[in-house]
Formats: sequence, C-alpha cells, structure tokens
Amino acid sequence: MRFDEAYSGNVFIGSHPSYEESKVVLYGMPMDWTVSYRPGSRFGPARIREVSIGLEEYSPYLDRELEEVKYFDAGDIPLPFGNPQRSLNIIEDYIDQLLTDGKTPLGMGGEHLVSWPVMKAVAKRYPELAIIHMDAHTDLREEYEGEPLSHSTPIRKIAEHIGPENVYSFGIRSGMKEEFQWAKENGMHISKFEVLEPLKEILPKLAGRPVYVTIDIDVLDPAHAPGTGTVDAGGITSKELLASIHEIAKSEVNVVGADLVEVAPIYDPSEQTANTASKLIREMLLGWVK
Amino acid sequence: MRFDEAYSGNVFIGSHPSYEESKVVLYGMPMDWTVSYRPGSRFGPARIREVSIGLEEYSPYLDRELEEVKYFDAGDIPLPFGNPQRSLNIIEDYIDQLLTDGKTPLGMGGEHLVSWPVMKAVAKRYPELAIIHMDAHTDLREEYEGEPLSHSTPIRKIAEHIGPENVYSFGIRSGMKEEFQWAKENGMHISKFEVLEPLKEILPKLAGRPVYVTIDIDVLDPAHAPGTGTVDAGGITSKELLASIHEIAKSEVNVVGADLVEVAPIYDPSEQTANTASKLIREMLLGWVK
Amino acid sequence: MRFDEAYSGNVFIGSHPSYEESKVVLYGMPMDWTVSYRPGSRFGPARIREVSIGLEEYSPYLDRELEEVKYFDAGDIPLPFGNPQRSLNIIEDYIDQLLTDGKTPLGMGGEHLVSWPVMKAVAKRYPELAIIHMDAHTDLREEYEGEPLSHSTPIRKIAEHIGPENVYSFGIRSGMKEEFQWAKENGMHISKFEVLEPLKEILPKLAGRPVYVTIDIDVLDPAHAPGTGTVDAGGITSKELLASIHEIAKSEVNVVGADLVEVAPIYDPSEQTANTASKLIREMLLGWVK
Amino acid sequence: MRFDEAYSGNVFIGSHPSYEESKVVLYGMPMDWTVSYRPGSRFGPARIREVSIGLEEYSPYLDRELEEVKYFDAGDIPLPFGNPQRSLNIIEDYIDQLLTDGKTPLGMGGEHLVSWPVMKAVAKRYPELAIIHMDAHTDLREEYEGEPLSHSTPIRKIAEHIGPENVYSFGIRSGMKEEFQWAKENGMHISKFEVLEPLKEILPKLAGRPVYVTIDIDVLDPAHAPGTGTVDAGGITSKELLASIHEIAKSEVNVVGADLVEVAPIYDPSEQTANTASKLIREMLLGWVK
Amino acid sequence: MRFDEAYSGNVFIGSHPSYEESKVVLYGMPMDWTVSYRPGSRFGPARIREVSIGLEEYSPYLDRELEEVKYFDAGDIPLPFGNPQRSLNIIEDYIDQLLTDGKTPLGMGGEHLVSWPVMKAVAKRYPELAIIHMDAHTDLREEYEGEPLSHSTPIRKIAEHIGPENVYSFGIRSGMKEEFQWAKENGMHISKFEVLEPLKEILPKLAGRPVYVTIDIDVLDPAHAPGTGTVDAGGITSKELLASIHEIAKSEVNVVGADLVEVAPIYDPSEQTANTASKLIREMLLGWVK
Amino acid sequence: MRFDEAYSGNVFIGSHPSYEESKVVLYGMPMDWTVSYRPGSRFGPARIREVSIGLEEYSPYLDRELEEVKYFDAGDIPLPFGNPQRSLNIIEDYIDQLLTDGKTPLGMGGEHLVSWPVMKAVAKRYPELAIIHMDAHTDLREEYEGEPLSHSTPIRKIAEHIGPENVYSFGIRSGMKEEFQWAKENGMHISKFEVLEPLKEILPKLAGRPVYVTIDIDVLDPAHAPGTGTVDAGGITSKELLASIHEIAKSEVNVVGADLVEVAPIYDPSEQTANTASKLIREMLLGWVK
Repeated sequence: MRFDEAYSGNVFIGSHPSYEESKVVLYGMPMDWTVSYRPGSRFGPARIREVSIGLEEYSPYLDRELEEVKYFDAGDIPLPFGNPQRSLNIIEDYIDQLLTDGKTPLGMGGEHLVSWPVMKAVAKRYPELAIIHMDAHTDLREEYEGEPLSHSTPIRKIAEHIGPENVYSFGIRSGMKEEFQWAKENGMHISKFEVLEPLKEILPKLAGRPVYVTIDIDVLDPAHAPGTGTVDAGGITSKELLASIHEIAKSEVNVVGADLVEVAPIYDPSEQTANTASKLIREMLLGWVK
Repeated sequence: MRFDEAYSGNVFIGSHPSYEESKVVLYGMPMDWTVSYRPGSRFGPARIREVSIGLEEYSPYLDRELEEVKYFDAGDIPLPFGNPQRSLNIIEDYIDQLLTDGKTPLGMGGEHLVSWPVMKAVAKRYPELAIIHMDAHTDLREEYEGEPLSHSTPIRKIAEHIGPENVYSFGIRSGMKEEFQWAKENGMHISKFEVLEPLKEILPKLAGRPVYVTIDIDVLDPAHAPGTGTVDAGGITSKELLASIHEIAKSEVNVVGADLVEVAPIYDPSEQTANTASKLIREMLLGWVK
Repeated sequence: MRFDEAYSGNVFIGSHPSYEESKVVLYGMPMDWTVSYRPGSRFGPARIREVSIGLEEYSPYLDRELEEVKYFDAGDIPLPFGNPQRSLNIIEDYIDQLLTDGKTPLGMGGEHLVSWPVMKAVAKRYPELAIIHMDAHTDLREEYEGEPLSHSTPIRKIAEHIGPENVYSFGIRSGMKEEFQWAKENGMHISKFEVLEPLKEILPKLAGRPVYVTIDIDVLDPAHAPGTGTVDAGGITSKELLASIHEIAKSEVNVVGADLVEVAPIYDPSEQTANTASKLIREMLLGWVK
Repeated sequence: MRFDEAYSGNVFIGSHPSYEESKVVLYGMPMDWTVSYRPGSRFGPARIREVSIGLEEYSPYLDRELEEVKYFDAGDIPLPFGNPQRSLNIIEDYIDQLLTDGKTPLGMGGEHLVSWPVMKAVAKRYPELAIIHMDAHTDLREEYEGEPLSHSTPIRKIAEHIGPENVYSFGIRSGMKEEFQWAKENGMHISKFEVLEPLKEILPKLAGRPVYVTIDIDVLDPAHAPGTGTVDAGGITSKELLASIHEIAKSEVNVVGADLVEVAPIYDPSEQTANTASKLIREMLLGWVK
Repeated sequence: MRFDEAYSGNVFIGSHPSYEESKVVLYGMPMDWTVSYRPGSRFGPARIREVSIGLEEYSPYLDRELEEVKYFDAGDIPLPFGNPQRSLNIIEDYIDQLLTDGKTPLGMGGEHLVSWPVMKAVAKRYPELAIIHMDAHTDLREEYEGEPLSHSTPIRKIAEHIGPENVYSFGIRSGMKEEFQWAKENGMHISKFEVLEPLKEILPKLAGRPVYVTIDIDVLDPAHAPGTGTVDAGGITSKELLASIHEIAKSEVNVVGADLVEVAPIYDPSEQTANTASKLIREMLLGWVK
Repeated sequence: MRFDEAYSGNVFIGSHPSYEESKVVLYGMPMDWTVSYRPGSRFGPARIREVSIGLEEYSPYLDRELEEVKYFDAGDIPLPFGNPQRSLNIIEDYIDQLLTDGKTPLGMGGEHLVSWPVMKAVAKRYPELAIIHMDAHTDLREEYEGEPLSHSTPIRKIAEHIGPENVYSFGIRSGMKEEFQWAKENGMHISKFEVLEPLKEILPKLAGRPVYVTIDIDVLDPAHAPGTGTVDAGGITSKELLASIHEIAKSEVNVVGADLVEVAPIYDPSEQTANTASKLIREMLLGWVK
C-alpha cells in the first residue's frame, strides 16, 4: 500500500505516469453548451475513462498492447460553462502547448464544436493537413439560429480555414440541402452513408500527408451508440467503425491528431456507448501511434 | 412574437398549416388495449412528433425536402380507453372522411390492430388494393385467448377481407404454426426473415396497383427498435428498412395509404426507437408522396 | 372531427384558446447552457405540458377549477443555443410585451438564470416589488468560474437590482460561505432548510405588496424531485411545497408573476418530477390568480 | 434436490403449499386495459412476488411471522386482453368460488377497476359490508370518455351497490369537482389528503363490521411509489401507510377481503414500488389475518 | 380453475410438467460472485423465464414446436452467496444427478464460471467430448488478481481438463496477449471475431462426436445484448447467432449439453437481452434436441 | 496548465493532497460478493466521489468548510473479486496501517460486511469502543445459507467481539425473529424504526467514549435512497439522517472511525442516492472531525 501520493483514479487504462515521457496526450473537452438537441456530452470523457477498466489492454485486432504506446491521460480541460468563445480559446491554447511540447493530441468530447480549435491549432503546425471526418451529420452550417458558434458548424469552419478540398467526410446521412450543395460546389469530399469502402479509396490519395481524424460517435447507428445527443437511424456498425480505424492504421497517412466526440452517457443506461468509445480510443492509440 | 393563436407545439416537423391545401394527413392512433404483452404504444405518436425536432427536413437519400410535400399533422384521434370495438369504429369513420376529402392517410400507432379499420376504409375506395406488410409477426390469428379483436389479428382480417392473395408480408420471424399454414394454404405471400430482397422481386408484380403499406416497427431487430411491445431477435437493420422504403419509392406501385405502428417509448430510455420512427415517417412522406 | 386548423397538442391542460382574453400567460424558457452540473432543463416545459393530461382540472385543496382562470399557454420562447446574453435579452423583451399587454407572466424553466430577465422586466412595472424565492441553493454568486451569467447568480442579480432587503429566500440548504455572508451583511432574508413556517411569518409583512415568486424545483428533497440538475438531500416534501403555495394564496400579497424552474426530465425515468411540477403549476394558477 | 414436481418459482414468500389448508388466497389480477394514462399494472403482481425474496418473513412491527398465517399464492387469474367486461366476469366468478371455499381473498392489481367485481362478490356474502378505500383519486366517475368500465369508476360502482354511506375513502387528493359533490350529497365519507388520523376516528365506528380494504398504491406520494400509472404529488409516506395498516390490525373491524392495486413496475427502475408493495402485502397478511 | 396445487408461475414457456418424462432439463445457475466488472447475472435465469411468455412456441426457422421436445424447467439451483467453491460443487453434483437420470443438461447463467463444473461433469460421461465456445472473451486466464476461481477462467480449466485440442472458441475479440498465446501453443482452436463461417468449417470435423456448447451472450455485439456484465463492441448480430445455432442443428455433432450465460438484466431497461436469450434457448431446444 | 503529474480526477471534493498531513483518510471498499439480493455496491465509492462535484464545500448546517478539515481521499482498496475472506483480511491490514499512522478511517462501501474488519481493527486500538449502527436491517445473523461471511452478519460479529452491550442499533425495521431475540437476550440496544429521538437519549450515556459509526444507506426510506441492494419501506428521511449526524456532532462522543455502506448506483438512474451519500460524507467530515 502507498499512501504517499494523491489517488489518481479514473484514468484511462494503461495511461503512462509521466507527461514528459509520453508521445500522446489524451484529454477531455467537457463542453456541451451549443448543442441544439440533447445536451450531456460534458460527461462523456469521464465516463469513457471510468468504463475503460472493463477493457483488456491488448488488441487482438492489432496484436499490440497499451504498454507499447506511451500516452498520458491529462484529465479534462476546465471550461467555463455557457461561454463557447472562451471555451474554444482555452482549448486552442491547450493544444498549442501540447504541440509545442511535441505531443500528439487525442481528444474526447464534448460536443463536436470542440474539434474546431483543435484542428485550427494542428493546422498551424501542419500546413499540408487533411481532415478525415466520420459523422452522421455534415456539420457544415455557417450558423445555427443566428449563432456562428454551434455544434453544427465545426467542419464548415475548418473547411474554410484549410480549404474544402482537404476535408473528407464519411458516413454522412443528415444535413440541410444547402450543406451538401456547399460541399459539392467547393470541392469538399462527402461519402454518404458508408465509411469503410470509400475510405479505402481515399486513403491512398492521402499517403504521406499529415491527417487529423475527427469521429462523431453518431456515425454509428443508434443501435451501436444510443448515448449521444442526436441519434440518426441507418448508421454503420461498431464492427465497421473498428475496421475503418484499422484501415487508417494500415495506410500510409500520418495521423497527427484525433478526437472522438459526442458521447452523452445519460441517454444510455446500459453504458454500451461509453464502453464502445473506450474500445475505439484503445484501437486509435494502438493503431495510429507508431 | 405572435400571441394571437393557440400554441401549436409538438407537431411533426414541416407540417403544413392547412388541412385543405394538404395532400397527406398524418395522424396518431393512441390505442394499446388489446396487446398481449407489454402495453405503452398509446404514447408512440406523441413521442415521434416530439423527437422529430432533432431531424433535418432534407433527405440525402431522396434529395428532397419536406417543404416539397404538403402534409398536415392532425394530431391524435381521441379513442375510448379499453373499448376496442368503439375505437376501431372511430378510426374507420375518421379515415372515411379523410378519403372523402381526397387525402392520403399516413398513420402512427398504437398497436397493430389500428391498421385494420384503416385498411378496410382504404379498400372501399381501391378495389384493386394490395397490402405490403413488414413485421416480425404474422398477425394472422383468428382470435387471441378468445378475443377476435387483438393486436395479433389485423393481417388475418384484411386478408380475409380483400383476399389473401393480395397481401404480401415481409420480414416475418414469429407466429404460430397454424398461421404460417393458413397463409400457405390460402395463397398469401410471406417472406420469412428478409425484407429488401424479396420486396425487389414482388414490387414489379404490383406495378400500377394501389398499395397500402403497414410497417410494424418490430420488423427491426430489437437492437434497432427496443422501444416496442414485443421485441424479437433476428430482425433487419434500420439501414435495410430505409432501403426498403426507398425501393418502394422507386417502384411503380401507387402508395394510397400507410402506417407505422407499435412504437412504445417507455421501453427505450435512449429514445432511439422514436427517433428512428420519425426518420422513417420523413422518408415515407418524401419517397411515397409524388 | 375538425381538420380546419393546426393541431394544437401538447398544451397545458385547460389552456384558454385566446391570448387576448387571457389574464395569465404560461410560457417555457428552454435554456440550460450555463448550468455547472447536469444539463437537460431545456426539455422541462415540454414535458410538464405533456404529463399535465394526467391531472384533473379541479383542485380539492382550493375548491377551484381551471376554467375559472383564463390563462393562455404560449409555448416555449425560441432561444439561441449556447448564447446566454442573447437568450436573456429575448426573454426580457418577451416579458416586456406580456406586461405591456396587461398579462401576468407564469414561466417554466429551464435553468434558474432565466428568472433574472423576467424579474428585471417585472421590477420595471412594480417599483415596490418583493421576491419570494424557494430553492435549495442561494444562487447568490457574483460569477461562476469567471462567468457572470450563470445559473448560480440570478438571485444576486435581482437582489442588487431591487435591493437585497426586498428578497426573501426559503428552504436554502446549499451555498458558499461567502453567499450566506453577503446575504447577512446586506439585509437579505434567508430561511435555511424550512419553507412553510418561515413563510407564515414573512407573508404578513409583505401584505399588499406586489410579489414575484420564483421556485426552483430542487427546493424539494431529491425523493420528491429527482429530475433536476443538482439534487441536494434534506429538502422539503411536495406536501410542504403545496402547502406553501396555498399559504401564499391565502395571504394578502399580490402575485404579479411567478416561475417554476430546473425540471430536467432525463434524470427521472418515472416522470414524477414533471408530474409534480404540472400539479404545482395548476395550484399556482388556481391559488394566485384571483 | 427434488425433480419430481414442477418448479414453483416466483411465489410470494412464505406461501403455503396447500390451497385446502390455507385460510387466505393471494392472487393477481393482471388487467390494465381501461387506464386513461400510463398502462403497465398488468405486470404488478408478478413483480411483487419476484421482489418478495428480498423481504424477511418476520414483522418487527407486529412481532409475527408468515408461518403463523396459512395463505396460498394462487398466481395470476388469466384475463382476456382488451375485454374489460369479460375480465370482470372472470374475476367475479373466481372470487365467488374462493368465498364458497371459505377463503379470504387478498388480491393484487392490476388497475383499480379489478376491485369492483371482487367487492361485489364479497358484498353478496357480507350484507353489512363496509369499504375502506385508500387512494389519491376519488374513482367516483360514472364513466370516462363514454366508457362505464374505467379505472376511474370502481368506487362509484360499489358505493351505488352497497350504499355510499358504507364507503370510507382516505388520502384523496385528486378528482373532478362533481365527484366530491356526489360523495357529499350522498353521504359517502371522504378524508382528503390524510389517512392515519381520520382512520383512527372512523375505525371505532366500524367495530365488529365486515370490512373490505382496497388500497391504490398511489395513495403514497410519488416519492414512495413512482411505479404507478398516475402519480400525484402531496401523498402520504410509506411509514404512514404502514401505520394505517397496523391501525386497522389493532382495531375491531373484521377484514373479510382486501387488495393492493396499480403497481406498474416499468415506471420505477429502482423497483422500490414493488418492494414496498410486497412489504405492505406481508403486513396485511400478518396484521389482518387472525 | 384449479386451486389444488401450488402456483407454478415463471416457468419457461412450454415446460413439460414431469421431470421423469423429460429428455432435457433446463435450470438456472444464479451466481455472479466472481465477476470482475458489473455483477447482476444472478437474475438472468429468472428474467429469461419471465419474458419467455412473449415468445411463440413455434420456430419458423426450424418448423418445429416446443411440444415436440420434452423438457422440464427445474428452476434455479440454490447457491451460497459469495462462496464460489461451494457453489461449483453444488452445480457439479446437480449435473451428475441429471446425467445419472439420463437427462440432457441445458443451463442458464449466471456468470461464465458456472459452466466449468457442468462441463467437468459432462466430460466424465463423454470421454470424447468436444467444447464449442462462443464468446467475446477468451476466458483462458489461470487466475484473476490471485483468484483461480474467476469468471475469466472457465475455458482454461476445461481445456486443461479435456485437452486444449478439444476446445473450439468462436467470436473471440478480447483477451490478454498471454491467453491467445497459450491457445496457440497448446493447439486450442480460436476463431477471432467471427462465428458462423468458421463454425461451418469446424463442424464437419466434429461429426459424430459428443459436443457441449457454451454461449456467453456477450458474443453478441452490445447493440444486441446490452444487458450483460462486460459489453465489448464489434460483436456479431443476433441474426448471426441464430444462424450459428441452426448450423449446429443441421450438423452431425451430438449436442450432449449446453448453456447460455452472462445475461444481466439490470443493464438493459428494454429487456431485449433477456428476450433474445429466451429465443436462443427455444432454438437450442428445438434445434439440438432430436 | 500543469502536465507534470498524473491526472487525479474523481477524488472527493476538497481532498487534501497529502496523506501525511491529513488527519482523516477516506477510502472505498468495493466489495459486494456476499450480498443475498441485488449486487452492485462495488461501484458505490467511485460514484459518490464522481457526483461530489455537484456539492458545495461549505455546510450551512455546521457553518464549516471542507478546507478546515484535512482529509485524504486514498481511492478504493483493491479487493479480490469473489473471495470474501481474503478481502476482509486486506481491509483489516489496511485499517491497521491507517491507525498506526494516526489517521481516522472514514470508509465507503461496498456491502455491509466490509465494516466488520474495520471495526475489529478499530477495537484493537480502543478497548472502550462503542458502535453506533444505523440501518434498516439487524445484520445479526450468524450465517446466511450456510455462509458465516455474509452481508447479514457484520453487527453480530462485532457484537460478539466487543460485547453486545456496546452496540447500539437505530432505525431497524427488518430482521429475523431470532435476531431481535438474540439482541434482547444479550443486552444489545436496538431502536426500532426511529433514529434521531432514541439517539438523543443514548448519546449522553456514551459521552467521552470512543465511538465507531456505521451507516447503511438503507436506513433511509427507499424514497430517499432507491440505489441500494435491499430497499425496505418505512424508513427515515434524509433530513432526519442529516439531523442525526449533526446530533452526534454536538454530542460528547469521540468518533474514532466511521463508514457509509451499501450505495449501489445502478438501481438509481437519477443518482440521488450517490448525491445524498456524498452530502452525508461531507457532513460526517465537517461534523465529526474536530
């Protein structure tokens, strides 16, 4: 028994004790104040950590163990409730520091808007950056009911920032007509409904490029992820999403950052969504960190 | 702000304000008094409307928006609790009036027995009527524990009414031996387990005919529709059901009425079933109303 | 059957069809973006209306029926997700118009911060205004983690606006030490733990004055209101809260506005909280509107 | 181990194996087809039995053990789904036979309407019968939306059958104005809001008389019984209801039959309602069967 | 009506009344004391029985009815809470007796460790025994945190007992690296991720042999079985599991015993897991008992 | 931002960072393997910590803040699943070390059996020890279905260890007849049903003595603590339990250790039980640590 240091419970399984020695930093962004439907994703990161104790540290898909990847679970970034702009600034500063320290950011949301400042910060370091986006929704709105800071806008923002031709969306099955038109007119890639097959076609084109991968858990069918803000029928299975993560692992893209967002535990009493998210995080760590 | 008229909340998204100008009428049939297992579908229609605010009005499957379809959400039909016969009479009168007014009926259940008076009323107008029925259960009983009015009987009733050879069931995976035998002996079509593939074979045979489509949400696997009275493993995915709706949309049948029944919200804390039902209703409106 | 007007479902039972003829206006303020713990009260007003169908229109406590009180359920005020300041401005404008039209405002939250613009608008019309506040929490913070717009601040704001000596809090069992000190040093009334008995002492002192009553549902013990953002043990019973409403009804204060806030349905699968809230609204209507 | 007889699981704890030797018969009436709000009480009896394994067989209130009372759990009476009249006939026949066999009936609902045929059958044997009724609701309607067989009518029916002056209601806090008026005009006793204190006053007047006690679980506050069809705030505690049962046990009335109705398990994930009901049944057995 | 025998409710549908005349005995093993994550499978067998009333007795997959199979539901084996060794001894004795009586054992868990004494007892009678194991987890640990009796060890124990070459695992997607290595080094068969296709390859090799089939419900994806102790994304569908059961039915193996374990109802408010389990039990009875 | 040390999330609010400087140590005992009814209390301590962020650090009851009490949250003691004896040994060793280091133990269960080794260890240091026990159940069994290590036995064990005359139970409303008799015959104090009033009588008699207080959360009525293994109607309110804690705080007993056990979060979707437990822990820290 050791009583000489603070209890560090609720850390993602296999987290390395040292920030300095770690290559990847895992962090939560507990923000859900701009969601238009069901809030609650602020509690996603904590619940994903909590249920990770039910996971093995070994992946039979990748034949690799978490001890082979040095990563540090830095906890949740404290964010000011109800203030989107200040929250985004805090996240951007946080990621800037991680990148300055040479770490690869791996984030857990929170609503999808949190990905915007992360992608912006990553884009500063990697001018050749491409975005791989898996989601049920386009997230290409300019604003939502008058608000430019909304969980429906992050992909539009990054697309305008780095050029729509560098953004690749997969699994999309919901959006406004105008969003699909904007993507088409501006050369942004959207694969509707499917993820794995179109990804296999796109990945070779991105070989050698730095890539940021942002996954909205609602790309999964509601059967596989009931615990999220906006469920939308007709999605992919968790088996397909795992295979997509493994496809990226096998490809020649260079994953320089990633996130998994929109896990909202309260809507899923069985906690399957958080459990699935924790397995996805493990596979992202084992598959994408070389 | 307008205070000069009654608040009309909880209407299905995109409902047109005028009954007269609408081509389709959407209505709820909040009855669940004859169910033999878990009641609660009386609250299905209200919950489907409520969660429809999480939906987009545009379908990327059909490239069509709800504003292109004039439909009127008429609310729930008030039905007398515990009296099946009076309830069925009220429904039949209601549909008669809709049809007299030249409207296409689109109903939300309630238990499956509510489809019987609707189909009967529709059959009066369309002597050539065929029924497309998607369900986990045959619903071909003559009676249930002595009761001829039961949620297990509506397909038997309509089959006897318009001739079993005009009824096509898909996705069936549960029933008594006698029910399957009756169907076989009487020339009624039953596709066991599958929906999409057998539907592709049958639809050309129905080209040009008026068709009523009745969908029991439990045709979906319990993973995709836990919120229903009788869940039964081994069903189809919501992706397959969406594709089946789209297959009908592409075919040359003439959909003259339809319903979606047996959503029982209390058994699904995540509300995925009601959300899925609301997306199905949107696709039925966008795909079947020309 | 009437199809000639839009379905106006999900209205609080007994709502009068005409805004003009109504004395009271009932409205929802579906905002929860500044809450520091569990969000979800945006869905409170809709659920309170929905479950009101389980209520009788007659109160055996007050021997009065809803048809004796003309009130109009105006639905929810549309508020911009994630923008507290714009939301508060919209609410204040809305209340200004209600008051200009001579209506008594009766609001349903949403988080407690929504009460601030309402109380401010009411205070413009009634310079002698006193506030009766029932809550588990002081809500007297100046800011919360740097944010002056927070669900922990509304009572501080109104106290500073109309003078702390005009604010009477009851049932308080949680707050920072500094909040209790501020109240004490500034002459604001706080009754800790209890509501009914101290209310009986205070009400005579307020005789003849215009009073705004703001009730946070968490003044109830979690046993009686589990469906709220921040539950706090040791609260009062629903019987005591009903008696407190009736005590105000019997008193000589002039209730010029009121609200009931912080019902968050997702945390209460039994829906007892929303049902209780709908009964409280009925008693407020029957008891406080002469 | 004995394999030579059918497994008899899910019997209420302490049930005696022999019908013949038992003085009391416990039975379920799994009917909920006339309820106007939330159905589900058909599953009440089974769940009450199931959770009874968490109970001790000894009551420290009464210093008595279940083995001192010979009672037989006869299971649920099979009732035809959706047919109220046939269901009531079956129940009445069932009770007639029990009474013919000299048994005391102890029933579990099911909706409150099931009490009507039981009380009618008991009244045939005991012309001096009085009814003690504990409930949140008057249940004195003549009909509900045109239906004379409704869960809102059983007390009216028995009051008209044996004379309103022989019916004593306690704890009532909801009803139509007309129901309270009918009771008043016809000499029926109603104690509003409270049970224990008015019961202490009434019991001596009933000394020596045969009494049937019907308890609707919603006489309890929703905090104590969330798992019921229509929750209504302001009710009594389970401590008070236990004390009321014990008060009857100490009195000189002769309990010739009783029931506990309206437990609807699906609305109570914690199962406290079923657990409380099973304790109430134990105390009724130990306190009322001499 | 018959009152002359004990109520035998909550028996699996179609259970034969006589142990002597039955070929198969169905029993529950309500033990969950060694689970390392979420307990609760002790309530699995009772809930599976309870929901079986929602099932038909006929299988349209196998065109066979339960009345064609004589089986006896013997209830749950009483096991001492918190004592794994004594529990396992009791189970082994129980199975020994069943086998002595010439019955085929069909068990319902409970945690997976309960399969160990059953398989050991069966192996005594059938020296040629092979094990077919469907599971998300290897269950090949020697001990768990120092405990040799753990829900993570049963397959290791039987593999060491009858020889690893006689054990065939399917659907495995989680385990320690050492477990997979042990299997590989010792000639045990593991099919990762898939069940149906590899089963088709293996079954012909087992033709004519006595086989015990042990199914952990978590071989299903969490979407299809949220109600279990350790959910793990990427599993098979219930459709695939049904097809696998039917594949065994069509094969030439001789099923001499089987079980279905790890249903933990509390994690699944929709009860789809228990419903699915009850359908699987029906198909196992109809398909495997000749 | 500091990245130089491990994330120490999920610590009870206000925990001091140093074990050495702390006077009290808070720890979890996540064991539930001997419970006879509903397991799940292993997750109690983690959930109590998690929800403590919703609490203020100041108590308006005691006018004291957590920063005035130096306590260290040491996390959960790792216990071997399914092995009661080894678990109890580990706990006893752990407490021995705490006491050697001069710390006051404050434990969170887990099932009630965990209190036994703690009390035994404390009794070694304090020969004059008295036990104050608040619970719905006597917990005085010698064994449960043959097992001497059961959640029904801890009070019997400590009573036999330090003498029954030194044990004071309050709020007891369930147990076997033999348990009550044993207490009576052996001079152990049991206050049935009530806590606060009998406590006021007993406390003066214990003035100056070292006291260990063990609270089973089920002493609360199920309305106030639905999230526990065995709910039992007729309990006390959280207000009364808070007052009882404060009564001890005001008394002259010397609290040398304490625990709060049997919080089982899964049975309480609203999380009121864990929230209440976290408030009770705060009041125990603020009231009992001088």
